[in-house]
Amino acid sequence: MKIAILGSGNVASHLSKALIKAGNPVMQVWSRHHENAVNLALEIGANSIPDIKDISESIEVVIIAVSDNAIENVASQIPVKENRLIIHTSGTTAIAILQKFGNQYGVIYPLQTFSKSADLDFSQVPLFIEGNTASSLDKISNIASQLSAKVQPADSQTRALLHVSAVFACNFTNHFYTIAQQILQEKNLSFDLLRPLIQETANKAMLNLPSTVQTGPAKRNDELTMNKHIDLLSSHPQWQVIYHLISQDIVKKYHPQQAEDK
Amino acid sequence: MKIAILGSGNVASHLSKALIKAGNPVMQVWSRHHENAVNLALEIGANSIPDIKDISESIEVVIIAVSDNAIENVASQIPVKENRLIIHTSGTTAIAILQKFGNQYGVIYPLQTFSKSADLDFSQVPLFIEGNTASSLDKISNIASQLSAKVQPADSQTRALLHVSAVFACNFTNHFYTIAQQILQEKNLSFDLLRPLIQETANKAMLNLPSTVQTGPAKRNDELTMNKHIDLLSSHPQWQVIYHLISQDIVKKYHPQQAEDK
Repeated sequence: MKIAILGSGNVASHLSKALIKAGNPVMQVWSRHHENAVNLALEIGANSIPDIKDISESIEVVIIAVSDNAIENVASQIPVKENRLIIHTSGTTAIAILQKFGNQYGVIYPLQTFSKSADLDFSQVPLFIEGNTASSLDKISNIASQLSAKVQPADSQTRALLHVSAVFACNFTNHFYTIAQQILQEKNLSFDLLRPLIQETANKAMLNLPSTVQTGPAKRNDELTMNKHIDLLSSHPQWQVIYHLISQDIVKKYHPQQAEDK
Repeated sequence: MKIAILGSGNVASHLSKALIKAGNPVMQVWSRHHENAVNLALEIGANSIPDIKDISESIEVVIIAVSDNAIENVASQIPVKENRLIIHTSGTTAIAILQKFGNQYGVIYPLQTFSKSADLDFSQVPLFIEGNTASSLDKISNIASQLSAKVQPADSQTRALLHVSAVFACNFTNHFYTIAQQILQEKNLSFDLLRPLIQETANKAMLNLPSTVQTGPAKRNDELTMNKHIDLLSSHPQWQVIYHLISQDIVKKYHPQQAEDK
């Protein structure tokens, strides 16, 4: 199946490399910033195209791997062609956004965090797939199964919930690593000091349900420590608010009586 | 050095096992709930004592490993005795809380998350130590170095900042894993689906500064997706507030212009 990739970001980059590794000819790359398309195309041995209208007639699968808020606009520029499969890769975007392609369209949503700087074993990335028809789903399943051992169907609503849960488990988590990094930096302390703790926190979640291994001042409803911490964050009022709010949510979960009226 | 442990929680349990593994005789265990002291004492081959006043004359080191808000009360019950070293294990509690022991006191603060259900290589746990005198610090350093390869001095203020950064990097992170777990549970989806993502998010922080590998809708300032996610969380208003606040903090960091007046 001859493939064109629209997008040159983290998902487009990792996905196109996985496709090629699995033996699929990724022929064309387009990006909003043409130089990015040129770079990715060079890296994977494809051609870069300056305009979406330049998608070759011979392309059988077009994969849209752009920001969620750009999908509609990008999709509107893809020429409609019979027997061409159009796929987007977004968690929160419904399959219906592609319905103008009437014929064959669907979704491959990789539930993983990609950074260009980080290598990744794509075969372990959970892929959630959806197709507009059983036949589309079948084709998409064939492509996805070449890339990963963890493929399963999910409708648009399920996929959106997976995405929002991933924002908490990954994006917000990484932001909290960043806040911790900044707290240490301001005191000239190395982020290395926290790495064993971060690793162990994730390790525990590999073996346990996280709700069963919560620790910390809020879990113990230790108001003295929580108040001291909020004082320590005085030069970052926004983090004080965040600290208070998350702690309150933890207290509410593990000490439902005490949390009332606070 | 004959040791008594006051406390029977996660830190007391892991620390006393590490002490014994390193060849130190942990002789006595006390806990607010005597049955917990009995259980831990049985596990490590020590004696449980029902009252702090029962600490034997021969004990040379007393380690206070109780909740931060209980340290003062526990310390007040320890008989003052010359040449006995008193140590607490708290991040946010200043060394001064032990000053009534005039003679020798200090802190061993393990920067790690402990759960009774999770085994852990204590030799890799960063230990931050403080002593009231150079001689106390030296003794504490000797004990700590038997337990871990990663021992370094830190004053009470530095330790408190390490602790608050750890609350973000570990406790709040685990709570976000828990929110994700609950979002999936409500849809009968397995937490297994998120485990590769959690692992990779932590892996990336082992090799990069987290501020350089942030991903997600807020990082892209993708308001469409953020608004959809907030809608999806409608049955959990508290999580909507949390989602909004953290996203706002991410947008502010990576898109300082756009975040103004929002």
